[in-house]
Amino acid sequence: MELVKQRILQDGQVKEGGVLKGDSFLNHQMDVAFLEEIGREFRRRFAGCQVDRILTIEASGIAVGSVVALEFACPLVFAKKSKTKNIAGDVYKTQVASFTHGTTYDVMVSKRFLTPEDRVLIVDDFLAVGNALRGLIDLVRQSGATLVGCGTVIEKGYQHGGDQLRAEGVRVESLAIVESMDHTTGQICFRD
Amino acid sequence: MELVKQRILQDGQVKEGGVLKGDSFLNHQMDVAFLEEIGREFRRRFAGCQVDRILTIEASGIAVGSVVALEFACPLVFAKKSKTKNIAGDVYKTQVASFTHGTTYDVMVSKRFLTPEDRVLIVDDFLAVGNALRGLIDLVRQSGATLVGCGTVIEKGYQHGGDQLRAEGVRVESLAIVESMDHTTGQICFRD
Repeated sequence: MELVKQRILQDGQVKEGGVLKGDSFLNHQMDVAFLEEIGREFRRRFAGCQVDRILTIEASGIAVGSVVALEFACPLVFAKKSKTKNIAGDVYKTQVASFTHGTTYDVMVSKRFLTPEDRVLIVDDFLAVGNALRGLIDLVRQSGATLVGCGTVIEKGYQHGGDQLRAEGVRVESLAIVESMDHTTGQICFRD
Repeated sequence: MELVKQRILQDGQVKEGGVLKGDSFLNHQMDVAFLEEIGREFRRRFAGCQVDRILTIEASGIAVGSVVALEFACPLVFAKKSKTKNIAGDVYKTQVASFTHGTTYDVMVSKRFLTPEDRVLIVDDFLAVGNALRGLIDLVRQSGATLVGCGTVIEKGYQHGGDQLRAEGVRVESLAIVESMDHTTGQICFRD
């Protein structure tokens, strides 16, 4: 999606170690008009697919999830990263290793909000090695719901998480796939 | 707002110890069409106020913040609960005591996203003793930005956080104020 590529080129920051920061428009400060366009684009890409639940993970997936759920006119569910008093009763639970933080955390969703009748579209802001998506896919599978696919705004193609999931038969739609970056020049190359 | 009161009566769950759960529509699974109406209502309540930034706190404030920011056509910024590699550089930082979890955590926002020129509307899903709002207000004051007010979806009036803030001169708009609840009968009374 040209809009996402342009925004990355304009406002993304390339850091050492393959880090691409989008915190001025995507995951700390959010440009919601930009997000609204993203919601529309996912609606177009998954046109014809019955989707009755959007699943994402806290925290920065929630803004993307909100606009996508508005487009699909269906509920948004976000997986929580730790058990809180605000989740009652039974949960589906999995573990996710954080590439960014070098830790592993529990991720859970109430069994009330993922059921075998649901057709689920997973969305998130970034896709790198794919651990968060794999955790969300595991939650969907535990619930017996049908996975329609995954949509991410920015995929870091050089970390191969998206390609591995595609090779396993998961439909992954990313609005911009960064193929390579150079932190010394700031240059960013996209996959065609 | 009648819509919010009706939704609380329909789907809210009253638990022992003054706990009101809205996890089926507000803070785990979100009804985004309902949230869209909430965004419009805050736009009406703060009509005539210049607002150029919406500030909320992760995680469940983000969905509310997204729809409010769409209505005001301005950026959404969410305060983060722990320092991550994804926040670069200087931050405004404060501490928030969690009434629900009995812990205290750091909350921070990048200095790039709150400036003295900003006129900020704070939003959140729930208001109880008011600790989260006080933390966000502290971040706004540290930045030198102007606080327009606070908007929350559900205020637990019997925990008095909203009234204390109002007594201190902060404009707090809550779409439904729960005055009392009885967990044995499930009865919920609203403030007029």
